[in-house]
Amino acid sequence: MELIRIPRIMHDTSRGHLLHGRSIGFVPTMGALHEGHLSLIKRSKDENDITVASIFINPLQFGPSEDFQQYPRDTDGDIAKLRKAEADVLFMPDASSIYHEGFATYITVDKISEKLCGAFRPGHFRGVATIVAKLFNIVKPTRAYFGQKDFQQAAIIRKMAKDLDMPVGIIASPTIREHDGLAMSSRNLYLSEEERKAAGVIYGCLIQTSEMIKSGIINKEKIKGFMKEKLSAEPLVREIQYASMYDPETLDEVENAGKEALLAVSVKVGGTRLIDNMLVKA
Amino acid sequence: MELIRIPRIMHDTSRGHLLHGRSIGFVPTMGALHEGHLSLIKRSKDENDITVASIFINPLQFGPSEDFQQYPRDTDGDIAKLRKAEADVLFMPDASSIYHEGFATYITVDKISEKLCGAFRPGHFRGVATIVAKLFNIVKPTRAYFGQKDFQQAAIIRKMAKDLDMPVGIIASPTIREHDGLAMSSRNLYLSEEERKAAGVIYGCLIQTSEMIKSGIINKEKIKGFMKEKLSAEPLVREIQYASMYDPETLDEVENAGKEALLAVSVKVGGTRLIDNMLVKA
Repeated sequence: MELIRIPRIMHDTSRGHLLHGRSIGFVPTMGALHEGHLSLIKRSKDENDITVASIFINPLQFGPSEDFQQYPRDTDGDIAKLRKAEADVLFMPDASSIYHEGFATYITVDKISEKLCGAFRPGHFRGVATIVAKLFNIVKPTRAYFGQKDFQQAAIIRKMAKDLDMPVGIIASPTIREHDGLAMSSRNLYLSEEERKAAGVIYGCLIQTSEMIKSGIINKEKIKGFMKEKLSAEPLVREIQYASMYDPETLDEVENAGKEALLAVSVKVGGTRLIDNMLVKA
Repeated sequence: MELIRIPRIMHDTSRGHLLHGRSIGFVPTMGALHEGHLSLIKRSKDENDITVASIFINPLQFGPSEDFQQYPRDTDGDIAKLRKAEADVLFMPDASSIYHEGFATYITVDKISEKLCGAFRPGHFRGVATIVAKLFNIVKPTRAYFGQKDFQQAAIIRKMAKDLDMPVGIIASPTIREHDGLAMSSRNLYLSEEERKAAGVIYGCLIQTSEMIKSGIINKEKIKGFMKEKLSAEPLVREIQYASMYDPETLDEVENAGKEALLAVSVKVGGTRLIDNMLVKA
């Protein structure tokens, strides 16, 4: 695996591959890699000639009161995992080579950025869209891979790529889960043993709600009521930020589950914010 | 000259050239071509293997009370001029293939977009940055050419390309002028015969001010006073939007002309808004 730290060299490396007609799969990450990330590497390797992973903890997508400082960092462990997964290139730039002094250009995706997590994390998706556009310009992927756990993030990036004519395919790959169903996330490392057990309630809630919908109960208020009840039953769930049924395209809440609905949840378990979602066919 | 209307075909055409190792020079325009545009085509041809011009009147960069509807259109004349100038490709997309329904992604370049013209045309440079990013993604130029008459526009695009790691060289080429010094602009077509004569005052003002600076008078207030006096002396100058001395990088007004200063002017001659500028070395 080639380790590249300088954007210019990453750019030239990708350009070389493209000039040779090779396709490039790209898995952007913030490190603290888990099985979810590695499933994206695997899929990228299956679908492309070259697979590039990146590790960059993007300060622009953290709010002033968020967890940028304590976000888990494990560079050596990450490199070992990526080598084992046979990624071809790891791009790991310094913050100063990504955001030079006087940086002032931002990409916003209106409407869908304001819903769900966007309502609780102002500026977050502007930070995500901007860094992803930069990484796309540096890495020049043919296809880029994102976890469906971050459904809204993948939807926003897909919209950005379409609206700005970026020549890259955006692929959202299924969420990888722990044995009790908890969606894998680097932030699960924040959970105490007790909180970790309690966090299983999120998946339980999604599964039971999807079964409710399949059984014919499709009204939003009923579904929302059921989800709140399930989540609130767990004493370590400290706050429910959202838990409802949405249109998978617009991310607007829907009154009744149509042919496809998105169940999405954001809760705080102890002090840790966790999200999850599930696409349900009625 | 190849005429391409469909973004996907433009994309594939450029990709083919790049795969053959050919450099692409790009001259984005809104049509109504004049000698200024053609000088950019000539320079692009000198510096690149392939030259692509585009014609697209971008609705996103016009305010609701601005001249989108009456902006001059002369497709047949433009095509003839580009053929004569030996452009290789003309990309002329329909508005619907550029802004599909639900388009929602915008690029903003903070700070320098708010100065000068930005203060009088809210949203204008957001529209410019967004369309140029889209065109860059479709045309994939090695180098892109802009007129120095639109100094702020070129500065914003250069900043955007740097901040977002766009792999394109941004080149601002000298303003081409009429015999009396009036900067060539498609909007000069709006001027009546009398207004056209009166508009010569702008270049006269810039030349005399630059001579003043070279003679050692470098204080902003003196320079500003002199410029206002010169411009106001012309009865058809209906409004002076700005006329002062700026830092060419930040576009902030400067107190004293340093080693390089930008003189920039925006006035309304009759109902037509005209801009011009000059870089002066003290």
